[in-house]
Amino acid sequence: MKQDAPLGVFDSGVGGLTVVQAIRRLMPQEDIIYLGDTARVPYGGKSPDTIRRFSREISIFLQSQGVKAIVIACNTASAHAMEMLQAEMPLPVFGVIRPGVETALEATKNGRIGIIGTTGTILSQAYQKELATERPNLHLFAEATPLLVPLVEENWLDRPASRLVVEEYLTPLLAARIDTLVLACTHYPLLKHLLQNVVGEGIRLVDSAGATALHLQRYLQVHGLASQGGGEAGVRIFLTDMPLQFSHMAERFLQEKPASIEVVSL
Amino acid sequence: MKQDAPLGVFDSGVGGLTVVQAIRRLMPQEDIIYLGDTARVPYGGKSPDTIRRFSREISIFLQSQGVKAIVIACNTASAHAMEMLQAEMPLPVFGVIRPGVETALEATKNGRIGIIGTTGTILSQAYQKELATERPNLHLFAEATPLLVPLVEENWLDRPASRLVVEEYLTPLLAARIDTLVLACTHYPLLKHLLQNVVGEGIRLVDSAGATALHLQRYLQVHGLASQGGGEAGVRIFLTDMPLQFSHMAERFLQEKPASIEVVSL
Repeated sequence: MKQDAPLGVFDSGVGGLTVVQAIRRLMPQEDIIYLGDTARVPYGGKSPDTIRRFSREISIFLQSQGVKAIVIACNTASAHAMEMLQAEMPLPVFGVIRPGVETALEATKNGRIGIIGTTGTILSQAYQKELATERPNLHLFAEATPLLVPLVEENWLDRPASRLVVEEYLTPLLAARIDTLVLACTHYPLLKHLLQNVVGEGIRLVDSAGATALHLQRYLQVHGLASQGGGEAGVRIFLTDMPLQFSHMAERFLQEKPASIEVVSL
Repeated sequence: MKQDAPLGVFDSGVGGLTVVQAIRRLMPQEDIIYLGDTARVPYGGKSPDTIRRFSREISIFLQSQGVKAIVIACNTASAHAMEMLQAEMPLPVFGVIRPGVETALEATKNGRIGIIGTTGTILSQAYQKELATERPNLHLFAEATPLLVPLVEENWLDRPASRLVVEEYLTPLLAARIDTLVLACTHYPLLKHLLQNVVGEGIRLVDSAGATALHLQRYLQVHGLASQGGGEAGVRIFLTDMPLQFSHMAERFLQEKPASIEVVSL
């Protein structure tokens, strides 16, 4: 049965596991196969052509594993490869950008939205274009915040240095009187506490991991693809390279122990 | 003439250009071909096998360009791939670790040496083993400092947040009363000013870029391989992917304009 097939999720590295975690919280009965392209991480600074090539290779691998749908749990790959994959793959393909955009549009009251992400995501203008298309009279303020990924990976989630880095990045957004801040990077949910603390309670943080999980749940239900299994589902992780201290980091992102971690070549 | 052949230098990304810059300052008559493996950067967290495979591919490319010697301007690749390349390649191959170690041994008076680098370099114990073999009674204090590479790439060379990050990392080394600090990462020369400022003038900073250039100069002279050309030499850069804003960053690391920047597949 197609319903019982696993979901396929991929990212350039470990970050997409925050999306997996959000899916698991919402749909604990779904099996998940995750591919982290750790041999070629990060995608952030790479060219669109290269990112499309990598994304195609990964999607073909996930398809060969019998997944029923593919979630691109990576903002850079969502920005550059989603249309191509939706056209090429015989499976439903989801990105993280659209759900984040929709949630931000529901959240904002004053129409002033901030966006933070890697340099690649911000320069791709993926969020800015999608937001502006949906509602042309918004005021958008985008900041590349490339130091936040290494801060998360170093597990410096609440150090004085981290706060100073965050304050430095967010000062122009706060001065622009945003009421909504889109976390356009799958690593950032781990910094949510610090970010909320720096921006204050008046600003709504939108994290696309949760928004993507909700969007996916609706789609699976409407299309009769939701798993009916009552048994224990789990997360199987495939990597293109085994990074140092990976399983430790994976558990921090996933908030559970994966069923297996395996290295594959694509 | 072999003397007039270019030198081949490689790194996982842009960092090795600090080694190129040091070579150029010392030997401006040498042509240099640089390969930055930007499609697969960073090497720091990747497995030794993967790093050896990448290093072999790159060395074969450099050989096909007619270089007279190969410099591994990357600490991770020096740690894992140097012996293999020295055995396999029909050319002299140099790494950055040995010259850094020799300079540190000359510099220390109290035998207490600190080492900072990426997690990969520190966990590989490459510097620690080489130092301990040379002089068994040293006291070595190694710290992985993974946030420093992104700080350099973000060009945050003297911000308050950068100082706080550096202070946090160096506190245990200062408490251990080191008199010498090895910068075991090719990005770190750009932070030299801030690092010196934090540790104070009493501690000698050893950067392997300069040490490697000196080592190479001696070798070329002794073996009759030094270029005799009086003309203008230059740096040709090959990349495996064109990262965003690369040429800007390359000029900061290189302190000159490269003759060309080209993308190749290996």
